Amino acid sequence: MSSPITVDAAVIGAGTAGLTAFSELRRQGLSAVLIDHGPLGTTCARVGCMPSKAALHAGHQWASLQAMLKGAAAPAGAATPGDLWRHARMTRDLLAGNTAKRTRDVAGDRLVMGTARFTGPGTVDVDGRSIRARAFVVATGSRPVVPQALAALGDRLLTTDSLFDLDTLPGSVGMLGLGAIGLEMGLALSRLGVRVVAGDMKSLPAGITDPRIGARAIERFGNEMTMWLGRPVETMPRQQAIELRSGGETAQVDAVLAALGRRPNVEGLDLQMAGVPLDARGQPVLDAHALRAGSSAVFLAGDASAIRPLMHEAVDEGLIAARAAAQFLGGRPHGDLPPRRTPLAIVFSDPDIATVGQAYDTLDLDRTVIGSAEGAANGRSRVMGAEGNLVRIYADRGNGRLLGAGLLAARGEHLAHLLAWAVQRGETVESLLAMPYYHPSIEEMVQSALKDASRQLAASR
Amino acid sequence: MSSPITVDAAVIGAGTAGLTAFSELRRQGLSAVLIDHGPLGTTCARVGCMPSKAALHAGHQWASLQAMLKGAAAPAGAATPGDLWRHARMTRDLLAGNTAKRTRDVAGDRLVMGTARFTGPGTVDVDGRSIRARAFVVATGSRPVVPQALAALGDRLLTTDSLFDLDTLPGSVGMLGLGAIGLEMGLALSRLGVRVVAGDMKSLPAGITDPRIGARAIERFGNEMTMWLGRPVETMPRQQAIELRSGGETAQVDAVLAALGRRPNVEGLDLQMAGVPLDARGQPVLDAHALRAGSSAVFLAGDASAIRPLMHEAVDEGLIAARAAAQFLGGRPHGDLPPRRTPLAIVFSDPDIATVGQAYDTLDLDRTVIGSAEGAANGRSRVMGAEGNLVRIYADRGNGRLLGAGLLAARGEHLAHLLAWAVQRGETVESLLAMPYYHPSIEEMVQSALKDASRQLAASR
Repeated sequence: MSSPITVDAAVIGAGTAGLTAFSELRRQGLSAVLIDHGPLGTTCARVGCMPSKAALHAGHQWASLQAMLKGAAAPAGAATPGDLWRHARMTRDLLAGNTAKRTRDVAGDRLVMGTARFTGPGTVDVDGRSIRARAFVVATGSRPVVPQALAALGDRLLTTDSLFDLDTLPGSVGMLGLGAIGLEMGLALSRLGVRVVAGDMKSLPAGITDPRIGARAIERFGNEMTMWLGRPVETMPRQQAIELRSGGETAQVDAVLAALGRRPNVEGLDLQMAGVPLDARGQPVLDAHALRAGSSAVFLAGDASAIRPLMHEAVDEGLIAARAAAQFLGGRPHGDLPPRRTPLAIVFSDPDIATVGQAYDTLDLDRTVIGSAEGAANGRSRVMGAEGNLVRIYADRGNGRLLGAGLLAARGEHLAHLLAWAVQRGETVESLLAMPYYHPSIEEMVQSALKDASRQLAASR
Repeated sequence: MSSPITVDAAVIGAGTAGLTAFSELRRQGLSAVLIDHGPLGTTCARVGCMPSKAALHAGHQWASLQAMLKGAAAPAGAATPGDLWRHARMTRDLLAGNTAKRTRDVAGDRLVMGTARFTGPGTVDVDGRSIRARAFVVATGSRPVVPQALAALGDRLLTTDSLFDLDTLPGSVGMLGLGAIGLEMGLALSRLGVRVVAGDMKSLPAGITDPRIGARAIERFGNEMTMWLGRPVETMPRQQAIELRSGGETAQVDAVLAALGRRPNVEGLDLQMAGVPLDARGQPVLDAHALRAGSSAVFLAGDASAIRPLMHEAVDEGLIAARAAAQFLGGRPHGDLPPRRTPLAIVFSDPDIATVGQAYDTLDLDRTVIGSAEGAANGRSRVMGAEGNLVRIYADRGNGRLLGAGLLAARGEHLAHLLAWAVQRGETVESLLAMPYYHPSIEEMVQSALKDASRQLAASR
């Protein structure tokens, strides 16, 4: 048993949020430790945003090759889906290795490897070693939800945590869940030649709430994978395969990938020992401004806070939690904290799906004008063979202010940034129409949607 | 000989600027005619931005296929460069046909087909028919510059006007001029398997003035074509080929494409008959605000004005010229006219080259901070194999305000829009750092460049 450690602040979890929080606490001159049970490397780099992008890139390359071969077999010597999958995994290993190394570089001898649990308001136990601190940042991340019923599938059950450890891809996959991750991974696998059957209880994929964007997504991606939406999927292990059933339909697949959402890693921490108030589901009750749990000395950041489980938000939350913890340690009120950014969610489905600012289901439709633009009327979309592009811009009927947007478009990730920045600045339909739009560009779809909104605003005056 | 026509305003040239001007004059309740010698369809759609984008798309597809084949020959049945070139031409014909049809729809019986020249301050002659008007918008576009010395090449001399009429591509092309058009077409042809030898008197390609962007462009594109920069190229017709000479180097090519810039179509108009002041080179002297030539009744718009020969600027100039003409007709001063947008120039070279706001050569470098970001440090660039991406952001050393940017990057066209909008709004380095940047995105390179600029601004305080 090692000797106890006493510090100003302890950060639990060395992912994106935790590492940011640790660096900020140190920058403020506080003593701190960074605790992690390993493996080091962020969720994003190890099993999240980076490997999914590498897999999507591989899928894009193979699908493009198939399109150019027009049904002919690829010649010997050409790239294979196996090559591309290996390259994607190699890229993943490289980037994950970089983040692990960066963690060690930043934390140095203040990195404590082990599993933490609270033993009192000011103490955590890390594998038998006691760490005393006056404030804590909990940034323990999240893990895939895997219902107990799926355990019967044994090693034929995959999650995004295990998928990237596969040397070779299965011939067919049942995708349980068609949220952002399910759709991205389903498309990546499908484009690498894997037959994909996907199901979700929701009637629209990828977290979409705008019905027209949702319909376009089903139309566009429905020919790349079988989609069973709005009804449950049952899995039954058979001798040679897994049988999927949904409604009256059945399918046989080699493996199942559970993409049913992610759950914050907070249960094993004994947070109640630190005086953290828990809700009925056992989740900490937080002040969304300072990310503080009740009046305890515990601040939560990143996926563990369950507010906006996205990498760029985890950076902000790590910073907010660290600054709020420093204010708490200094006996100061939680005043000046970094502001949150305009919500921005992107599914890299190519054509991408994005939701910016206020999502459709949070709009007061009577007070909203929706300007729309179609790829079929956009020259660049036509050159790219992306006539199915659809951009929908939500504006306040009263003052023309941009509220948000929903879109499905090739290069949509970039339109989403443009629109998110515009929402954050409080731009209006008219102020945005004064901006430059190069020709021929996908950005001209934003211009068309704004013109459509402008006509409606004029008509409603 | 037809009967004379008398109208409030005559628009000469039915391209992008002319059609916009005509529509605006009509919208203001003025009588107007639209004169064009044909063929109808805008420069952009017929021989400019659209066909070049279609050819670049084709080139991208073929180059991607080659990369995936890793040296193996494409199997029978696969797409060929010839197929892709034909498809690009078909897309061009479709889009050009659309613009021609739109011109006829908009102008109806007010479209006068024929060649116009001024015969007095209020009269033009159109192939023998006299048209009297109290104001004129000249929007006659531009044409490729072709030095007389090249005439000896006969039908082996191409311009962007004739290139898209070719059924099959030559095996090799000498590209005279490596401005935006020369680089785009050189890369499109090279990626379609044409051997390209390109030369320009300037030492940097594509109109770049930022030396680091220029060096990166030469490094990146120099392995796709031979580039002779900073020295003249001579062409000598031989029996079977054309010989190119530059410095001590020579090359044989099948055809030469002149991409030496474009010249406004103003000479044949007898503008001096309308009281238009001409400069020493025979170009009209304009008021850049109202686009009016001296105190004459003539307003110039689009490529003919030689201000910013870009399609999206032609739309604005058409509108400005029409409104200024209407003010003139109403005896009103040239007051309230649409403002110009932030300069934005994009070369779709993939990785794209873009110049936003103030170009490097117009900066006061002592008063400027340049923030830089490299693709090698950007996760998404690495996933895309675009480690050579480079973003340079120019900010005012005094107040941190964004002045402009230069970049070479995959998806650079989208970063360019984001930055151009930011310049137009008067954003600063700090205000932009508060915007959302999704992970992993190319937009994070903008964030990195801004952080670099922010560090320099802090250090210089």
